[in-house]
Amino acid sequence: MADAPLFDTLTIVGPGLIGSSILRRARQTGALARHLIAADSSPDVLNRVKELGIADEVTASLTEAAAKSDAVILCIPTGAIRTVATTILPHMKPGSILSDVASVRNTLGPDISVQLPEGVSYIPAHPMAGTEYSGPDAGFATLFEDRWTLLVPPEGSAPEAICLMEEFWKRCGSRTRQMTDHYHDQVCAIVSHLPHLLAFTICNTADRLSTDLQTDVLEYAASGFRDFTRIAASDPIMWRDIFLTNKDILLATFKRFEQDAHLMVEAIQGEDIESIMSILHRGRHIRQGLTKDHHS
Amino acid sequence: MADAPLFDTLTIVGPGLIGSSILRRARQTGALARHLIAADSSPDVLNRVKELGIADEVTASLTEAAAKSDAVILCIPTGAIRTVATTILPHMKPGSILSDVASVRNTLGPDISVQLPEGVSYIPAHPMAGTEYSGPDAGFATLFEDRWTLLVPPEGSAPEAICLMEEFWKRCGSRTRQMTDHYHDQVCAIVSHLPHLLAFTICNTADRLSTDLQTDVLEYAASGFRDFTRIAASDPIMWRDIFLTNKDILLATFKRFEQDAHLMVEAIQGEDIESIMSILHRGRHIRQGLTKDHHS
Repeated sequence: MADAPLFDTLTIVGPGLIGSSILRRARQTGALARHLIAADSSPDVLNRVKELGIADEVTASLTEAAAKSDAVILCIPTGAIRTVATTILPHMKPGSILSDVASVRNTLGPDISVQLPEGVSYIPAHPMAGTEYSGPDAGFATLFEDRWTLLVPPEGSAPEAICLMEEFWKRCGSRTRQMTDHYHDQVCAIVSHLPHLLAFTICNTADRLSTDLQTDVLEYAASGFRDFTRIAASDPIMWRDIFLTNKDILLATFKRFEQDAHLMVEAIQGEDIESIMSILHRGRHIRQGLTKDHHS
Repeated sequence: MADAPLFDTLTIVGPGLIGSSILRRARQTGALARHLIAADSSPDVLNRVKELGIADEVTASLTEAAAKSDAVILCIPTGAIRTVATTILPHMKPGSILSDVASVRNTLGPDISVQLPEGVSYIPAHPMAGTEYSGPDAGFATLFEDRWTLLVPPEGSAPEAICLMEEFWKRCGSRTRQMTDHYHDQVCAIVSHLPHLLAFTICNTADRLSTDLQTDVLEYAASGFRDFTRIAASDPIMWRDIFLTNKDILLATFKRFEQDAHLMVEAIQGEDIESIMSILHRGRHIRQGLTKDHHS
């Protein structure tokens, strides 16, 4: 027998890659919510969601949707979360849950916690899943399967609300873990934000080369460049927000990386074979650890 | 009707990933050479080649193999090419071709050219193909298919020898292009060597984190880190040689990259949204150019 739905009414604000994947999963399994609302300010997005048939209801009114929902998940750029939360929270009913899927926390937790009406919980979660595509057509029901979803409930959150959202993401197919905002942002700075910063940067370096050389770089990109820069095809607005929101931790992580890069550059400059080999072996060892002991 | 083999006897020195892939291709198509010799200093490697049945003859004597070959391809670490070339060149017969598959040229071309016996040509080529695996078991006959092989014949090479090696790589499935050593090294610094340097470095940065954080970095590596660092699993000895051989161009390319990284870091530090967006858009544009207009 199928599990009863976790929520009666669920609103997804921003049915893009992540949001529409949740809707598809909810539709497919019936285990997330009985009634699905997609809310967005763009009529085009709402029409497309209607055509795709992945919500029971579409609306441009976030406050009306919020008022009748048991859970509202903001699947919108990080930079817009505070404003939208401030707008809809006064309309949410006691016992309901506000969530978001932001890839970076900074002070979102405390900032939004202080605005919570009586009986409303804020239980954000970061599903570590994604592709370089965006929009309602980009989603798919299995996007979160076997991916980590990191729950970052603010201090003092109601345990039953945390439990519900953890079960929600498990039913999306995720493995889940709880951590603090700060720790979350440190982990993500190195596993995601810094790699993106470097990938965007090396594409710019390629862009500044002479025209001849640039053409050939694109032509011969097979060896490393292609894999290395795949993530630079990601949505610029999303990444602008992430870089700005995680500014302090990201720049500190970049600094450590730059120091390490200088160790490597100096070893090459001085033809210090022992140091070079030690860096290469350690790098390879870490990378091989990924392949052997850890999934994704 | 199958094409007649290009060479009578072909020796592959170093039947690892690249070398054993050539042997497999030669075996499978019959179009590269009539008689295949695998030469290596390691008895284990030679035994494995014998077991795999991908050569007609295996030998530890490079000079004997060279003496009876119409073409000898050195598929060995870049740092060993000069020494091995110097050893075998005096034994090669007039009309034969020495080649290698080094990923970086530096002064290999002129250095080896001056040692060529009368009638022997040196036509090196760099197949831009590979995986993070190595050894005779890692090769496969289709490794070079739809990949670029960059021919870098030294100035004054015999046109018929260039033509033969170009046809050789086409029969391996490659697209081919000729260029000068210096231009080759510039292109490869940005499409391959710098990405590898950065990938090895970021793995080291991850390694230096606190134990807790490091464990979680490995655990949550999905978002970017995994793709970004795949190339850091590559063979350390090969990459030590590449970094050292292309030292000057690589370090100049790193400097340009570092300047670009600082532009990005300063834009984030100063929350200069216009600059951040311009960098992200340009990066994405370059990356999307790869997906749309260029193969592989």
